[in-house]
Amino acid sequence: MSPSPAPIKVGVVLFAGFNVLDVFGPLEMLSWVPGGAEIRMLAEEPGNIASGEGPGCLADAALGGEHGLDILLVPGGMGTRREVQNQPFIDELARQCAQARLVAGVCTGSALLARAGVLDGRRATTNKRAFGWVASQGPKVDWVAEARWVEDGNIFTSSGVSAGMDMALGIVAHLFDRAMSVEIAARAEYEWHEDKAWDPFAKLNGLA
Amino acid sequence: MSPSPAPIKVGVVLFAGFNVLDVFGPLEMLSWVPGGAEIRMLAEEPGNIASGEGPGCLADAALGGEHGLDILLVPGGMGTRREVQNQPFIDELARQCAQARLVAGVCTGSALLARAGVLDGRRATTNKRAFGWVASQGPKVDWVAEARWVEDGNIFTSSGVSAGMDMALGIVAHLFDRAMSVEIAARAEYEWHEDKAWDPFAKLNGLA
Repeated sequence: MSPSPAPIKVGVVLFAGFNVLDVFGPLEMLSWVPGGAEIRMLAEEPGNIASGEGPGCLADAALGGEHGLDILLVPGGMGTRREVQNQPFIDELARQCAQARLVAGVCTGSALLARAGVLDGRRATTNKRAFGWVASQGPKVDWVAEARWVEDGNIFTSSGVSAGMDMALGIVAHLFDRAMSVEIAARAEYEWHEDKAWDPFAKLNGLA
Repeated sequence: MSPSPAPIKVGVVLFAGFNVLDVFGPLEMLSWVPGGAEIRMLAEEPGNIASGEGPGCLADAALGGEHGLDILLVPGGMGTRREVQNQPFIDELARQCAQARLVAGVCTGSALLARAGVLDGRRATTNKRAFGWVASQGPKVDWVAEARWVEDGNIFTSSGVSAGMDMALGIVAHLFDRAMSVEIAARAEYEWHEDKAWDPFAKLNGLA
């Protein structure tokens, strides 16, 4: 028998007012890879972090530090409106992005990545209701209005909220293979939108 | 101007090894009703509760007590395998179900509801990979193998994991109206499976 595969190491950036589905939709999908996911919840200060929806989650480590991550997951949520102005947080985020093997921004998490300069000269997308505001955070970013998610090198960004799940399965296909994404979607009883170009919400919001 | 509507009161039953998407998928959808959702995270003992996927969430109140809930949300997850044997927990769950205006079980959360006798004589569904085990927890339940979710009176139960989001939008349509479910799905950039009978996963698992 071959040895059990090592877990993938996923770090999640938490801040007050993060969106719960931005975080836990992708984590659900990533946790089912062979070997599972070793998930580290990171925040400026460890402890209980209140989501935008109310429930609190435990950040078990400080964002600053060496985490050796395969994936750094950056959610959105109403708290991003405040965090784009938090320069020490943005500086540390930039440092963490440079160290992670792959960076994944969900929804308005793209605003944080844009402020950190991580998306400069890259293609990226974000929430379709907050598109104008997010785009204003990164004038040097090649913003893609119509996309479920966008891959550019090792930087993945998704549309709003639910789109993070489709992107996460895209990341599984990128790191492993498509058959595994299909298998994980079946386990989660999830209908994967496998086509990155599928985006009825761009049209709904006058962006396409 | 009409006064702001009151928030709906949602209680979530947490236990070690709950599934994260079972909890946060439905909460995402419910949090967008007019007036929002006042969410109470409940566990036998308040404090940090580790999910099956790893991250911990804060239970801010004891399950025992008077919570005046509009919706009692009961997630599944690997921890259900243990909790079906935890009689004091099952007894308190039965008491809480009797007091809530509406009960919503997600995935293997149906096993807990079945053990609590809440589903006896009712139609219900559950995760399609764990169907046999869950059904064995409730011999007096009318188990429906092929359904995205099932409504029977004030008891809603869904298929596995992701199906909780579709059920939650069904609950919004039940408590408010369909237009609101459609609006919330659009905000979450979510493609709602509005048809309760849509269930490719029953077939995939030899149940239909």
